[in-house]
Amino acid sequence: MTDPLLPDCDDTRFAVLLETAAREASGLWLARRRPGLTNPDARSTLPDLRDLPLPLEALSAELAGMLASATPRGTDPLNLAYIPSSGNAAALIADWFAAAANLHTASALLSPQGVALERDVIATVADFLGYGQPCGGLLTGGSSLANLIALTAARDAAFPGAGKEGLTGLPPGRLYASTAVHVCIPRAAQVLGLGQDALVSASSSDPDRIDPTRLREHLRADRAAGLRPVAVIATVGTAATGAIDPLAELADVTRNEQVWLHVDGAYGAPAAAIEPELARAMAAADSVALDLHKWLFQPYETGCLLVRDARALATSFSFRADYLDLPHGELDPMQLGPELSRGLRALRIWATFRCIGPERLREALRHCMGLARLLSDSFSESSPLEVCAHVRLSVVCLRLRGSERLDCTRADPMHRKLRDCLASASPPILVSTLRLGDRLVLRMCFVNPATRADEVTYLVERLEACARKVNPVTGDSLPQSIATGIPSQNA
Amino acid sequence: MTDPLLPDCDDTRFAVLLETAAREASGLWLARRRPGLTNPDARSTLPDLRDLPLPLEALSAELAGMLASATPRGTDPLNLAYIPSSGNAAALIADWFAAAANLHTASALLSPQGVALERDVIATVADFLGYGQPCGGLLTGGSSLANLIALTAARDAAFPGAGKEGLTGLPPGRLYASTAVHVCIPRAAQVLGLGQDALVSASSSDPDRIDPTRLREHLRADRAAGLRPVAVIATVGTAATGAIDPLAELADVTRNEQVWLHVDGAYGAPAAAIEPELARAMAAADSVALDLHKWLFQPYETGCLLVRDARALATSFSFRADYLDLPHGELDPMQLGPELSRGLRALRIWATFRCIGPERLREALRHCMGLARLLSDSFSESSPLEVCAHVRLSVVCLRLRGSERLDCTRADPMHRKLRDCLASASPPILVSTLRLGDRLVLRMCFVNPATRADEVTYLVERLEACARKVNPVTGDSLPQSIATGIPSQNA
Repeated sequence: MTDPLLPDCDDTRFAVLLETAAREASGLWLARRRPGLTNPDARSTLPDLRDLPLPLEALSAELAGMLASATPRGTDPLNLAYIPSSGNAAALIADWFAAAANLHTASALLSPQGVALERDVIATVADFLGYGQPCGGLLTGGSSLANLIALTAARDAAFPGAGKEGLTGLPPGRLYASTAVHVCIPRAAQVLGLGQDALVSASSSDPDRIDPTRLREHLRADRAAGLRPVAVIATVGTAATGAIDPLAELADVTRNEQVWLHVDGAYGAPAAAIEPELARAMAAADSVALDLHKWLFQPYETGCLLVRDARALATSFSFRADYLDLPHGELDPMQLGPELSRGLRALRIWATFRCIGPERLREALRHCMGLARLLSDSFSESSPLEVCAHVRLSVVCLRLRGSERLDCTRADPMHRKLRDCLASASPPILVSTLRLGDRLVLRMCFVNPATRADEVTYLVERLEACARKVNPVTGDSLPQSIATGIPSQNA
Repeated sequence: MTDPLLPDCDDTRFAVLLETAAREASGLWLARRRPGLTNPDARSTLPDLRDLPLPLEALSAELAGMLASATPRGTDPLNLAYIPSSGNAAALIADWFAAAANLHTASALLSPQGVALERDVIATVADFLGYGQPCGGLLTGGSSLANLIALTAARDAAFPGAGKEGLTGLPPGRLYASTAVHVCIPRAAQVLGLGQDALVSASSSDPDRIDPTRLREHLRADRAAGLRPVAVIATVGTAATGAIDPLAELADVTRNEQVWLHVDGAYGAPAAAIEPELARAMAAADSVALDLHKWLFQPYETGCLLVRDARALATSFSFRADYLDLPHGELDPMQLGPELSRGLRALRIWATFRCIGPERLREALRHCMGLARLLSDSFSESSPLEVCAHVRLSVVCLRLRGSERLDCTRADPMHRKLRDCLASASPPILVSTLRLGDRLVLRMCFVNPATRADEVTYLVERLEACARKVNPVTGDSLPQSIATGIPSQNA
């Protein structure tokens, strides 16, 4: 069969070119798993699209060259910056098949296999996290969208007429979360027409957590003032430190006050698979959003929304389209969120559970938490570094010991230098800096099961060497007395 | 390098398994391009995820079996139902590399290569469609989301305080479109808190088009009544018939009335690449949404939003995140829409333009329109079928001649039978039924460049044979006199 888009190729030629492409793409994946690739400038490697068309047989080599050292590289076991996506070989193979099959996952009638796969995956993920049944949900590109979808449903449950008539003339809605809530939540409040000001912090002294007593007071005072509580957003694993809201107590409050409880578990929700108490508490939530590309070893664009009652999603998103002439399948994926022609995101998760299985996934989660504990236990009082946030999951935050007594304008650049020093180690270690309160600190996140304990040892060694380098006795540095924890007379 | 998720595999083993996977996935793609696959039941082919993990070496064969005949199959040249996604070999190769590289496309600092690719692609698509510069935009999973993003920006431009304070207490917003507007638009109105009732039809006698005079009257009357016009949504290529709104006249109205003009060109926008007048008119729009998986030969989840001024998107979606500690890049992709960790959707479009080039893409668009004309010119007055909607792009709607004089309860089932009759031809032809006004009709959509003129001849032959079969002289049928166009005394 010839192809007018690529007239030089028949099926035999395509078969040869696809095989070459696959070999090159395999090589790319294998190479990108190893530590130590350099990261040259991006633009210099991009050919000009206005040139004459490139023959298809030259495409693979060109793409391999463009992507070999492209960032971020979540497969690098020494990449601990932000929240890397490690992916896995079963998911990669599934993605290749998904690309070759090019199914969409809109409705059971149009795409029975895709929808069956997605439903299997939703149920499997819900079981894995102890969220249990009944449960519906949806795969999304990411948890930002999953959070937006859940909050749309919560808003339409709180304002039953708003879907038709809009929010004008209705009482202001309110969302409640901790101060550490992810930026996608105020963004969702804006999209939904509630406005960013609708999001209220229910934290007390600890900005990482909602204070349940404070929350109850807020809810009652707001109701009394004529405002309409829409949802409480509990975070399971903040992006900054991995902190977890007091879910069980929050669930008591939201049940008594009849407010939607949504869990943003983008990074941390998988911990429920190895912590039965967390799972039980999370199961009380009306909805849970998570990114399987964060801590369930999937490639990017593997977000997921679980909901206790999928009909709540259908209330916000269900439609009838004459042009489809289909029986109305209320709980079809296209009726549960804002996307219609959705691809086959489910296949990679399906293949992961099929070939790796829940037991090894749990082991990998424990392994990541173990690495974080190993790292955080590595700093004695004589170390130039110290842990500066509670290590709850697999994130570790460190600061130069004593730097909290320096002015930010001196301490912050030191932490950036420390980060850059690690990046220039051989092999390089990638960590991120993070503003915690008003102080910049170092942050390391373990979500790659391929990272080994001896690599944490290497990390500690480089961390301490770099800390001593950015903190010499003279120069732009901490006073040595502060750095060693001994109060300085000059401090 | 070993992998604790798949402990039986080292890199050598992975290389072998990936090569096997690629060979099987290539075979799947080649097989799915040919007409005539049967479509067995979905569920029967799905293995149980609760079984013991499957060895990775068995995954490829299992996936190939699951997906071989899965629907929909947009590569089948005889699949003319709904709007199939044909994909192409360059895009497939790019998707394989994108899966192997697993980049995200969030910010130029975190993912320089991914962002550079996406910016190149946005500019290239804008040039291809004659939308020109200055232009910003965003790739999305689909045009439903692209439309939602554009309308968020339009709403926040119309209600400058709403992003912060919400819509409560503000005047009701209004959206204007034709009666044939896609279902994702009222859905977006609901998500945005405007409410589905905010969407007003500005059609007059022709439900497929906005009447510019009527629109102007609506805008002025609504403003006078204290309502707030938010956007006019012009459709370029309705899902039903491919109709196009009178863009140039609408642009005059929206310019004079200072309202955001958004084009939903999900299916039809690529026609601007071969129709300079359409391109000029579309270039006056503030934003254009399209699905490159519809009529630009991409696989699913290749939506795109073009905007004249990307800062309008940043007003709605830009945020600062302490946990990222990044310089604020206002026009980073993650600042222009609701998604944060976005994958490398750009690569497949990039590879398509790189290896196929704009000229062959234009030829393919003309080819599809030519097939639609060829089909619609095939029905003489003696045919049992007739064209029942203006053929503007590459969609053809047909009905049984004379069926409009029958009651719907008789005529509709005949059209479904006709559809089913085509599906049981050998090789099968897939068409969809569609409600046009209150009548069911047959709809065929040509978006696959691999469909040949002789396949249209085969289609016409099967159409007429099937029409005669569902319309015998006796039985559940049209009176023969009606079917041949001669008025019946009994009608």
